[in-house]
Amino acid sequence: MSNCTWDIPSTAREQSHADFQLGPADAPGTPRDWSITKRTLTSGASTGVELVEIDNGRLKIRAVPTRGMGLLDAHCDGERLGWKSPVRGPVHPQFVSLMEPTGMGWLDGFDELMVRCGVESNGSPVFDEQGRLVHPLHGRIANKPAHNLKVMIDAESGVIRLQAVVDEIRFHFFKMQLTTTLFTSFGSTSFGWEDEVMNLGSTPATMQMLYHLNVGAPLLSPGARLIAPVKTVSPHDHYPDDVAVRDWQVYPSLPSAAPQQSFFFELLGDGAGQTQVLLEAADSAQGLAIRFNQRELPCFTLWRNSVPAADGYVTGLEPGTNFPNPRPFEEQHGRLVTLASGETWRTSINLDWLRDTQQVQNSRAAMAQLQGDARPEIHPAPHPHWSPRATPT
Amino acid sequence: MSNCTWDIPSTAREQSHADFQLGPADAPGTPRDWSITKRTLTSGASTGVELVEIDNGRLKIRAVPTRGMGLLDAHCDGERLGWKSPVRGPVHPQFVSLMEPTGMGWLDGFDELMVRCGVESNGSPVFDEQGRLVHPLHGRIANKPAHNLKVMIDAESGVIRLQAVVDEIRFHFFKMQLTTTLFTSFGSTSFGWEDEVMNLGSTPATMQMLYHLNVGAPLLSPGARLIAPVKTVSPHDHYPDDVAVRDWQVYPSLPSAAPQQSFFFELLGDGAGQTQVLLEAADSAQGLAIRFNQRELPCFTLWRNSVPAADGYVTGLEPGTNFPNPRPFEEQHGRLVTLASGETWRTSINLDWLRDTQQVQNSRAAMAQLQGDARPEIHPAPHPHWSPRATPT
Amino acid sequence: MSNCTWDIPSTAREQSHADFQLGPADAPGTPRDWSITKRTLTSGASTGVELVEIDNGRLKIRAVPTRGMGLLDAHCDGERLGWKSPVRGPVHPQFVSLMEPTGMGWLDGFDELMVRCGVESNGSPVFDEQGRLVHPLHGRIANKPAHNLKVMIDAESGVIRLQAVVDEIRFHFFKMQLTTTLFTSFGSTSFGWEDEVMNLGSTPATMQMLYHLNVGAPLLSPGARLIAPVKTVSPHDHYPDDVAVRDWQVYPSLPSAAPQQSFFFELLGDGAGQTQVLLEAADSAQGLAIRFNQRELPCFTLWRNSVPAADGYVTGLEPGTNFPNPRPFEEQHGRLVTLASGETWRTSINLDWLRDTQQVQNSRAAMAQLQGDARPEIHPAPHPHWSPRATPT
Repeated sequence: MSNCTWDIPSTAREQSHADFQLGPADAPGTPRDWSITKRTLTSGASTGVELVEIDNGRLKIRAVPTRGMGLLDAHCDGERLGWKSPVRGPVHPQFVSLMEPTGMGWLDGFDELMVRCGVESNGSPVFDEQGRLVHPLHGRIANKPAHNLKVMIDAESGVIRLQAVVDEIRFHFFKMQLTTTLFTSFGSTSFGWEDEVMNLGSTPATMQMLYHLNVGAPLLSPGARLIAPVKTVSPHDHYPDDVAVRDWQVYPSLPSAAPQQSFFFELLGDGAGQTQVLLEAADSAQGLAIRFNQRELPCFTLWRNSVPAADGYVTGLEPGTNFPNPRPFEEQHGRLVTLASGETWRTSINLDWLRDTQQVQNSRAAMAQLQGDARPEIHPAPHPHWSPRATPT
Repeated sequence: MSNCTWDIPSTAREQSHADFQLGPADAPGTPRDWSITKRTLTSGASTGVELVEIDNGRLKIRAVPTRGMGLLDAHCDGERLGWKSPVRGPVHPQFVSLMEPTGMGWLDGFDELMVRCGVESNGSPVFDEQGRLVHPLHGRIANKPAHNLKVMIDAESGVIRLQAVVDEIRFHFFKMQLTTTLFTSFGSTSFGWEDEVMNLGSTPATMQMLYHLNVGAPLLSPGARLIAPVKTVSPHDHYPDDVAVRDWQVYPSLPSAAPQQSFFFELLGDGAGQTQVLLEAADSAQGLAIRFNQRELPCFTLWRNSVPAADGYVTGLEPGTNFPNPRPFEEQHGRLVTLASGETWRTSINLDWLRDTQQVQNSRAAMAQLQGDARPEIHPAPHPHWSPRATPT
Repeated sequence: MSNCTWDIPSTAREQSHADFQLGPADAPGTPRDWSITKRTLTSGASTGVELVEIDNGRLKIRAVPTRGMGLLDAHCDGERLGWKSPVRGPVHPQFVSLMEPTGMGWLDGFDELMVRCGVESNGSPVFDEQGRLVHPLHGRIANKPAHNLKVMIDAESGVIRLQAVVDEIRFHFFKMQLTTTLFTSFGSTSFGWEDEVMNLGSTPATMQMLYHLNVGAPLLSPGARLIAPVKTVSPHDHYPDDVAVRDWQVYPSLPSAAPQQSFFFELLGDGAGQTQVLLEAADSAQGLAIRFNQRELPCFTLWRNSVPAADGYVTGLEPGTNFPNPRPFEEQHGRLVTLASGETWRTSINLDWLRDTQQVQNSRAAMAQLQGDARPEIHPAPHPHWSPRATPT
């Protein structure tokens, strides 16, 4: 016994004690196999990060209050919905140099299934005439800590809700408050969230919101497809021929000639503006349907990061009030939301993690119905209304 | 019982456990109704903030060691002395991007009754020739955590003291150490602090200090008055006519044509340099007298933020070694303090929260005596000695 | 008993509870007088800093996981190996504005015996054409928190090891992981560390590493000497005559005409590349030998900070892959390390804290053997291959 090894315990990433827990015994009339657990992580760059896990009996969803109530991932049947970023998080905002002069510090904490980009701004960094950072990449909200966490369980309808408030407030400048309610139902593989952003200030203010939904393996692989009811699609940038826009539906094989591609969409919706997109696995045995309202979220961005696993193989499916261009470009094209004093912007997004071929097929059918006879308008090159990379005419 | 709601406990802003407490039983010979309590906050952007509450039996004062020993507020008779900032703090420095390129990050944490601005610099941000931030708005000290907290109680004189040390130290650059002692007496509605700033370095160094005292409703309202023994007063900037400098004494009705105004004062003092100003409520039923020594704090700035409550209705009453202009302007006009190696700058400020008309009247009489026959010199426009906004001649 | 004073306990710097502890009872067959203790500090700018103390029975070494596994100091026989910085740390990275526009924020946390500078870059800050900070002074690694701490004790060989992992990872940009193993033996006054830096990304990446070893009094004093087997030496900058390069071996008397000096060395090694330098006390009664391999660490920098104690009297002894010039200069002169995908760079450094004249003499003899008949090539002025301060020809 001459050789002993000990892990120093507080560094084991998620062995920290649960500091809040709920289960069937707490809510009469609920099923027998759910739980809600809050932990505070204690290791490395995750130190101090609060993590809430909702286990609805079938699906486990992990939310990160400390990071603006982003969603880390979901688990079902031993599979994970999310992606494997080279960043090993969740990273506490104290270790994210969000406002560093290049504006790229946000990438130090980028590893979640869902990251909110906003709310003063999102998209590429913006600098003033002297080169000083004004708007960092994708804004501040994902690195603001939530407060006033609340759990609500409705035994009758079977709905579990987790509510929290995130402030994005600077004296003299912005005074925005997000109230977000994550929801799921006992035994379901669906979940979603309702967001309200209120302008607490006394004068009108503008905002942007983009939901950066990120999915990697196993759902994503070469040959996986994005199905969407498309009015128009155009690329963010000029890409090599073999990743032409006409191929936006099928994820390319690796290695890709153009590993980074973004496409900007206007979608088709029903009479009430409801629309959806579907990420379908290559074998069609599973999928992720994302349902939202295009009156609230008129812009949809597809991002393909077709890189080796080590670099973070992932696709971004991003409903938003705007495209992730620099804020002044979006402002110029009318894609800011203006809120009067006390006014609230609202939206909700539903995710259905489709678990078999039948469910996938039903989702495809719903999409076909939305598309109807409409023929997608495909722009092979960046379009000046949607992208600052368009060739000036 | 089909609908249950739980607040997740650690997020209830001030429900965190007291981690230090003193009371009558700890100090024989003291009154029966005082306490000193230290808590560590656990919610949102306040997570990790230490808060010390001194209850002297009449007045409760809350100090924030984690934020450079600023003072959050005071309470008496169910009323609060302080203001309601759109910022919901106290905000932990880890969530204040103090050094972001614009230099305005300090405003993310601005919500206290008293914030120290300094000590390397205060005032507007300063940039180098390439536009790089050198001095952030109002300096670093308010976002530096205190250490060596100590409580001292003198049962005989009835004085309670809370002492702490705050370092503003960068290898090769600045080596300043603030020792601050907050004091009050059992049953009193007065309190104050003695500050010592020592140059720990081996060579002379310059410093600035401005006490940003911020008061909102109910003491502040349109019609409230600032009473001060004035030698000269001049505006920071050119303001519209209806906020002419001659009206500096009376707080304007809302909405104001010029919500942001600052006035720079030289005050009159007694033979020892002692002076004071009085913020008097519109109904004269209460007031706040601020007493200090103009040899230590020769500059006094009045800031009016005449905005709706939602944006933070507040006035700043700011004794300082200088005016809150960019440091190079103040340096050029001789308003830096130079400390030799090991030298200490000292000052003390007393606040009297006047609780009835008689006390207010006595304070006004003291002010009248300081004013005597001297006629205030009123500059209707920015003056080049005091403001960089003066029109060049 | 009318006057009472209390220290508020959680602010007593190192009175925080041990949250992990090992001793003889945990590892059968080990000596009776060793311990390994981990604490989390709770005061001021040290709040939240994890500190691991290894007491091997003779020597106490304190490592700082929260600061990239830097080494704070070592203690032996009542003496301290380290230095007294004006910075009172260890400072938590949350209080270090590493990425502030000037790039000098690193200095807010500079007080350790050993700080790693790297790994994307080290040396002076680098800015882009618009003056925006790209590489901060000495890089990010020293302000990244470690995870996966592990203690290994080999009772047979008597070796104690403390291993930890530090990530320097930004999505799209850098993906470097340091695994470091601090080691010492029961009863020894020697210690060291093995470092592995792995490129986790899928494409080649470049790195730099410099070990900033800092020693002050009592080992350092005027008259102390640096002994090294020298091939070439040249100054970083143009210095006044009385600190001519020919005097690099002897630490100057104080006050010095040029308090800041750096000298760049190529050393001589044995057939396997092993080399060493010795910092010898003025009375030769103690010394510090630093052993490393020049194939891994081909550059050695001597930094003299010959300032009064208050400003941080210290010398830097800095083996590195490069000299601490701006990264582009080092790149231009071939002093970056390129790592293929998955490739690992390795090195190890041994420190012998020599405790008597005989040990010092032996070390000098070893150095003399390495020097042999080779004559040091002394450049009196900055040389264009090694310093950007060289006068253009």
